[in-house]
Amino acid sequence: MSEPTKFLLAEDQIPTTWVNLMPDLPGEPLPPLSPATGQPAGPEDLAAIFPLGLIEQEVSQAPEVVIPDAVREAYGLWRPTPLYRARRLERALDTPAKIFYKYEGVSPAGSHKSNTAVPQAYENAQAGVRKLATETGAGQWGSSLAFACGLFGLECEVFMVGSSFDQKPYRRSMMRTWGASVHRSPSERTQSGRSQASHPTGSLGIAISEAVEVAAQDETCNYALGSVLNHVLLHQTVIGQEAMLQMELAGAEPDVVVACVGGGSNFGGLCFPFLRRVLAGQATTRFVAAEPAACPTLTRGVYRYDYGDTSGLTPMMPMYTLGHDFVPPPMHAGGLRYHGGATMLCGLVRAGAVEARAYRQNETFAAAVQFARTEGIIPAPEPAHAIRAVIEEAEAAREAGEERTILFGLCGHGNFDLAAYDAYLSGSLENLEFSQAEMDAAVARLPEAPAIA
Amino acid sequence: MSEPTKFLLAEDQIPTTWVNLMPDLPGEPLPPLSPATGQPAGPEDLAAIFPLGLIEQEVSQAPEVVIPDAVREAYGLWRPTPLYRARRLERALDTPAKIFYKYEGVSPAGSHKSNTAVPQAYENAQAGVRKLATETGAGQWGSSLAFACGLFGLECEVFMVGSSFDQKPYRRSMMRTWGASVHRSPSERTQSGRSQASHPTGSLGIAISEAVEVAAQDETCNYALGSVLNHVLLHQTVIGQEAMLQMELAGAEPDVVVACVGGGSNFGGLCFPFLRRVLAGQATTRFVAAEPAACPTLTRGVYRYDYGDTSGLTPMMPMYTLGHDFVPPPMHAGGLRYHGGATMLCGLVRAGAVEARAYRQNETFAAAVQFARTEGIIPAPEPAHAIRAVIEEAEAAREAGEERTILFGLCGHGNFDLAAYDAYLSGSLENLEFSQAEMDAAVARLPEAPAIA
Repeated sequence: MSEPTKFLLAEDQIPTTWVNLMPDLPGEPLPPLSPATGQPAGPEDLAAIFPLGLIEQEVSQAPEVVIPDAVREAYGLWRPTPLYRARRLERALDTPAKIFYKYEGVSPAGSHKSNTAVPQAYENAQAGVRKLATETGAGQWGSSLAFACGLFGLECEVFMVGSSFDQKPYRRSMMRTWGASVHRSPSERTQSGRSQASHPTGSLGIAISEAVEVAAQDETCNYALGSVLNHVLLHQTVIGQEAMLQMELAGAEPDVVVACVGGGSNFGGLCFPFLRRVLAGQATTRFVAAEPAACPTLTRGVYRYDYGDTSGLTPMMPMYTLGHDFVPPPMHAGGLRYHGGATMLCGLVRAGAVEARAYRQNETFAAAVQFARTEGIIPAPEPAHAIRAVIEEAEAAREAGEERTILFGLCGHGNFDLAAYDAYLSGSLENLEFSQAEMDAAVARLPEAPAIA
Repeated sequence: MSEPTKFLLAEDQIPTTWVNLMPDLPGEPLPPLSPATGQPAGPEDLAAIFPLGLIEQEVSQAPEVVIPDAVREAYGLWRPTPLYRARRLERALDTPAKIFYKYEGVSPAGSHKSNTAVPQAYENAQAGVRKLATETGAGQWGSSLAFACGLFGLECEVFMVGSSFDQKPYRRSMMRTWGASVHRSPSERTQSGRSQASHPTGSLGIAISEAVEVAAQDETCNYALGSVLNHVLLHQTVIGQEAMLQMELAGAEPDVVVACVGGGSNFGGLCFPFLRRVLAGQATTRFVAAEPAACPTLTRGVYRYDYGDTSGLTPMMPMYTLGHDFVPPPMHAGGLRYHGGATMLCGLVRAGAVEARAYRQNETFAAAVQFARTEGIIPAPEPAHAIRAVIEEAEAAREAGEERTILFGLCGHGNFDLAAYDAYLSGSLENLEFSQAEMDAAVARLPEAPAIA
């Protein structure tokens, strides 16, 4: 047998700590602001919907945070995940570049989201919470939380963005199989949902408002968020830590690391352990964040304080935003339909440590199909954006005649996204346009908050 | 971290040979008979639709067959597959039994079928064939062949059993994403299909007839079968060989090995390497074959010569059969809707080396949901039959107060079968009844052939 395709770790090589990039970030951290007072929000502002264990992680300045044993044991159901060398894709692209990918689709729910669903369910169970409410876009997060709640004996109630609810009936079935209840958002169940009935396709922002409202009104119910927050990005760093070990096994060092961005947790999870080395001056790795042209938060948003949800129930956070009430078109990468992004990631983009690029649906699916026909795995539409960027990098390496080592995050499989592939293969997939005029109007509705220097 | 959940092998531990159980079988082998003459069929009778490389494997008496390097390299895309200890299921069952499962759902197409799709595509490509035609029941085999044909540059045409075509639209999309064309069977494309228009839900037997007809009429096109034949069972023995190594890693020896049976390739793949030791008097392992009560080939069929397909185009083979024109009800375990079974497996059942059990749909899905809520993975409906048998074994161990080590084959995930879970969870799943009268009528239509002693 020639050179290996996969680089595997043993179960006892699951990381024992998460990487907290907070103390490494350049500049002074900007505090979240209370939606009620406009003043800096403290841990107490989060206590109504989050357990203390997660709030401590959210505000921690420790460079590492220990992973509880029960969480590591549950991680063992699918972790460590494999790292692959994409030899067949390299041959198809006729590139001197080496392409590696870290595959998170082996989790039962099919994506990286389980990495944070498990510790969130665990901390809530430890705190005596009975139930978690959440939103889901593509369905990956809701599935993962339904799975994780089952492991720790919690009920789970999911608000699923309307367009995804219609496109992906099997994601609903999956959540129900694991015991969760699922609503189409905007729903009649909440005030936030009823007020958004004029947006029947929904958005992540609307669904978040619904779930937060349910959690805030029920003392035995908490809220769980699948991206954006510091503790979510923290949990995902198991990806990058494993990938670093596996790249060593492969005898390779990445010149560029690529991941797609919705809220930023997949990106942060893969990249932050590598970024720590760059921020410390120990490496010169480049980082590319791939997003959809129809929801181009990092490439065309404004850097301002904004709410995390549509109704303005969450704290205001500094970030690139298209406006908290921006409703992206119902494109197929449902997990990337978010108006804002993680504060930590947005700061790194602004500081020039991460480059952002935006791609249209058809070029993205063309890349996904080329990947599927060479490597076998059918990617979810979200990481297909990363694959598009990887192919650009590999083609640039060929044109420059240079070796280049590329690592990307294949954060989930596309088994529930095949209607989108059908649309692409039949030529009926639209290149949805981003409207600058619509965005300008949304920006004009941003909350009052201090300008950011 | 406590004891491990997964037992993994490195890529260079992919087996280098397949296990051929032919020379180990008790008694004289019964030859297949030509459908035209009723006389023993030789390799030349297969040459119209199979390449020489596969025919040689089909009739080989060698105890091992070398796996070509190109096949092993392609196996590396997903093999070795993990072996799991089902600790959470054990706790939920409160059983002293140890439960292990070998998980084949990590292949890109989501099941064990890729283990034979790859060598079949390879041998046909080596022989200069342009295209493969095949049938698919649940869609697992068609997906795997579409994937494998892509790897070796072959076209692929799939006849998909009508009821599955309707239940699983995403399986079609998956095959098309990998470049295959897909027909609903019975189709208008073939004489065999047109003659079965009165059975609109179709059957594996009808779909096989259609694919064989296409292959027989086109010199550049061959046929590929996903189960039943000797060479298919041979290819699947990578499963059992890896499992044997992994059980050693786990420090355990199975008392009983359980697998579901449609045509028999999943069962043979897991069990034959273990069966070799039993047939040689080196072990006393029990073997349980789990099948659906609505298509109870092994438990209620007659042991006779019969065709492999509905129209009588294939050789007659000795097997348990419900009659080649038996059309099973459109139940959800589409991969188990086959009137017959592999000659090798049927002989072992008849000789008492393998015990067969039949289960109804609702008890099967109850077992699958219990598995999903403890172990995470949502099983395909086919291996859910094995899980039902495993739970019986584990409960028997508890009642007897005895330790018992159980190994079973989780041959695929249920990501494309969630409509069936919906039906089960909503209480609308039927316990379809097997009709003895219908079967008696089908048996009366069996082809003329020598009785079997």
